[in-house]
Amino acid sequence: MSDHVYKKIELTGSSTKSIEDAVQQALSKASKTLHNLRWFEVVETRGEVDEKGQIKHWQVSLKVGFRIDG
Amino acid sequence: MSDHVYKKIELTGSSTKSIEDAVQQALSKASKTLHNLRWFEVVETRGEVDEKGQIKHWQVSLKVGFRIDG
Amino acid sequence: MSDHVYKKIELTGSSTKSIEDAVQQALSKASKTLHNLRWFEVVETRGEVDEKGQIKHWQVSLKVGFRIDG
Amino acid sequence: MSDHVYKKIELTGSSTKSIEDAVQQALSKASKTLHNLRWFEVVETRGEVDEKGQIKHWQVSLKVGFRIDG
Amino acid sequence: MSDHVYKKIELTGSSTKSIEDAVQQALSKASKTLHNLRWFEVVETRGEVDEKGQIKHWQVSLKVGFRIDG
Amino acid sequence: MSDHVYKKIELTGSSTKSIEDAVQQALSKASKTLHNLRWFEVVETRGEVDEKGQIKHWQVSLKVGFRIDG
Amino acid sequence: MSDHVYKKIELTGSSTKSIEDAVQQALSKASKTLHNLRWFEVVETRGEVDEKGQIKHWQVSLKVGFRIDG
Amino acid sequence: MSDHVYKKIELTGSSTKSIEDAVQQALSKASKTLHNLRWFEVVETRGEVDEKGQIKHWQVSLKVGFRIDG
Amino acid sequence: MSDHVYKKIELTGSSTKSIEDAVQQALSKASKTLHNLRWFEVVETRGEVDEKGQIKHWQVSLKVGFRIDG
Amino acid sequence: MSDHVYKKIELTGSSTKSIEDAVQQALSKASKTLHNLRWFEVVETRGEVDEKGQIKHWQVSLKVGFRIDG
Amino acid sequence: MSDHVYKKIELTGSSTKSIEDAVQQALSKASKTLHNLRWFEVVETRGEVDEKGQIKHWQVSLKVGFRIDG
Amino acid sequence: MSDHVYKKIELTGSSTKSIEDAVQQALSKASKTLHNLRWFEVVETRGEVDEKGQIKHWQVSLKVGFRIDG
Repeated sequence: MSDHVYKKIELTGSSTKSIEDAVQQALSKASKTLHNLRWFEVVETRGEVDEKGQIKHWQVSLKVGFRIDG
Repeated sequence: MSDHVYKKIELTGSSTKSIEDAVQQALSKASKTLHNLRWFEVVETRGEVDEKGQIKHWQVSLKVGFRIDG
Repeated sequence: MSDHVYKKIELTGSSTKSIEDAVQQALSKASKTLHNLRWFEVVETRGEVDEKGQIKHWQVSLKVGFRIDG
Repeated sequence: MSDHVYKKIELTGSSTKSIEDAVQQALSKASKTLHNLRWFEVVETRGEVDEKGQIKHWQVSLKVGFRIDG
Repeated sequence: MSDHVYKKIELTGSSTKSIEDAVQQALSKASKTLHNLRWFEVVETRGEVDEKGQIKHWQVSLKVGFRIDG
Repeated sequence: MSDHVYKKIELTGSSTKSIEDAVQQALSKASKTLHNLRWFEVVETRGEVDEKGQIKHWQVSLKVGFRIDG
Repeated sequence: MSDHVYKKIELTGSSTKSIEDAVQQALSKASKTLHNLRWFEVVETRGEVDEKGQIKHWQVSLKVGFRIDG
Repeated sequence: MSDHVYKKIELTGSSTKSIEDAVQQALSKASKTLHNLRWFEVVETRGEVDEKGQIKHWQVSLKVGFRIDG
Repeated sequence: MSDHVYKKIELTGSSTKSIEDAVQQALSKASKTLHNLRWFEVVETRGEVDEKGQIKHWQVSLKVGFRIDG
Repeated sequence: MSDHVYKKIELTGSSTKSIEDAVQQALSKASKTLHNLRWFEVVETRGEVDEKGQIKHWQVSLKVGFRIDG
Repeated sequence: MSDHVYKKIELTGSSTKSIEDAVQQALSKASKTLHNLRWFEVVETRGEVDEKGQIKHWQVSLKVGFRIDG
Repeated sequence: MSDHVYKKIELTGSSTKSIEDAVQQALSKASKTLHNLRWFEVVETRGEVDEKGQIKHWQVSLKVGFRIDG
């Protein structure tokens, strides 16, 4: 990480399966337009609940860092 | 979420399996007495460890929001 | 937890599989040199991403508490 | 506030008009079932946006304190 | 704390004597209507002052956890 | 919010009138170039004061979330 | 803001009308004895409630910055 | 607390006896030059330790609010 | 504190009597193996409650600083 | 800062020399593609260490604000 | 720091050179009117940027503690 | 950082010169007894002031991470 400059953006991914999958969904989407993704930091874990008390979706917010220098 | 009023309560669920299951345990218990559960927010993730360093239980605290207006 | 004194240390475990496994890796390592591990608290969840946007490792920081009195 | 015991609950009120009105909506709803409401503390201010960038609803979370001793 | 679900509520107790007594006042009041109280966490310590700069009351806010499963 | 991925950006809007108007100014500006704006979260409320102690501008920072998946 | 030194003080203003008015009340009072007020930052928004659940007063705490160098 | 404006200052009191006494020391000192002290909020609790592990002093930082109008 | 280097560790002491005594218990234990203890900072105050709502133990977490240079 | 709207982005700059230089590296990189940079706020200061305990790089994360209205 | 009472005020110093110099500017200004300055704590580091992305000023906010008892 | 486990400790270094030098002092001291130091995170920046308002020492607290697995 010597001479580089990085940018961090904040994303929210969702998944019916797990926290890990919600993070992966967000990263997969981001990697379509951004190169040099390097790391992420989870900043919030939320979710929606249906009428029977079952988790419908996990919604995980994360900061994603990527290199912006050539 | 237009004209409604919501209440949030704080629960702690536990599970030997995973963070996700500890959250689901808390929501399943809450749904027995509360209607209109809508969303949750994880606020703390802890656990207990046995003498061999194995995780015994995940203990996850969450805020749960539900509609309180007719 | 009546008359005891506890110490907390901060560890970071990593895993290619899940948040739960990263925590277990850290606890397993700690239990080789420390006795009386009792509980943990997750304080940070991060990870590294490869060039295709896939999660390479989960890196989970946790505080671990253990009894230090005879 | 001498010898009393108070309980705080967390509510989220919504309004199309203003932050102040969202707080009042939550308090009006709460006062139907709770007596001795005394004070509130705003803890989060959010809202929803429509397709043209107009604010649809303000959603304000607040803690409300009320006396619970006879 | 194996398979249980816990609820946390937030109380404010007051006392002319000490921080410890303000916490005990809140717990004693809560125990009249709630069973299975287990632990508390102090979240805020405030107080009122009289015209001569003497502390009139300590006001201590705490979260109290209790088991809600049968 | 089922299978979607969202991005959050941070804006600061200003207004001579009110906190609400400063938020709306930021959202109106953002909606000119961004589609699918969904929600916002106020993160900071500041302002400037003139020589007579009158508020010149409200400056409100907010995070704005919008869907980034097709 | 080049070579200057600023001091920040913390005030709480109150108003029956709005959050904005509570801030202005505090600034108007401060401007009677302090010169060179420049900016403010809202740090807490609270209020009192009457027996019918109506907001009696908004109480807004703010930090106010002013230049202290000649 | 209707139409008033309050100022908060931050003090640190110390005591060899207790947290409560350290707060009272700070308030007693403040009351010699300030009128209308109303409330305080504890913001930090620290202390010094001697060579045998005995607490030498409690050092408690608190914000103190007092009315500045009229 | 001129040219020195300090280390901080985090301990949790418990006491049936008071917050102050729980801190002293932790410091007394630490001083048996560590030299040059200098200061502490309270970071969390919790406790356990018995079936009648009486406080069983205070559990106070603190950071303790000590000099590590010769 | 009257009628304008600002956007804040988060960058991480690195430098072998100093915290100040790491911030300047990030700003210099950002100014190549963004106009109207106005202010920054340092949010995190980290670094890497070599095998002899020497600092290899300072890594400073900052939020950078710039005007986005014409 | 035995029996003394301290007051903390919050200042913002600025410098074109460095974070350290901005702190020193604030302390030098404060020492002209306040005696017994003892310590400071940096609470915020910001700055302004010119059109070419060069740092114009560092603006560092700090709390300064000084003894107020005779 | 693939399969490794890391421990973080908290140190405070001091220097009459700069923030950077205080961090380096702490790391140099730590590297005498610990191997595999990897990164640090600054968590607090404080200092002492002499009677003329000059900074006597910078005191910087940092967390230092190092690998603990063979």
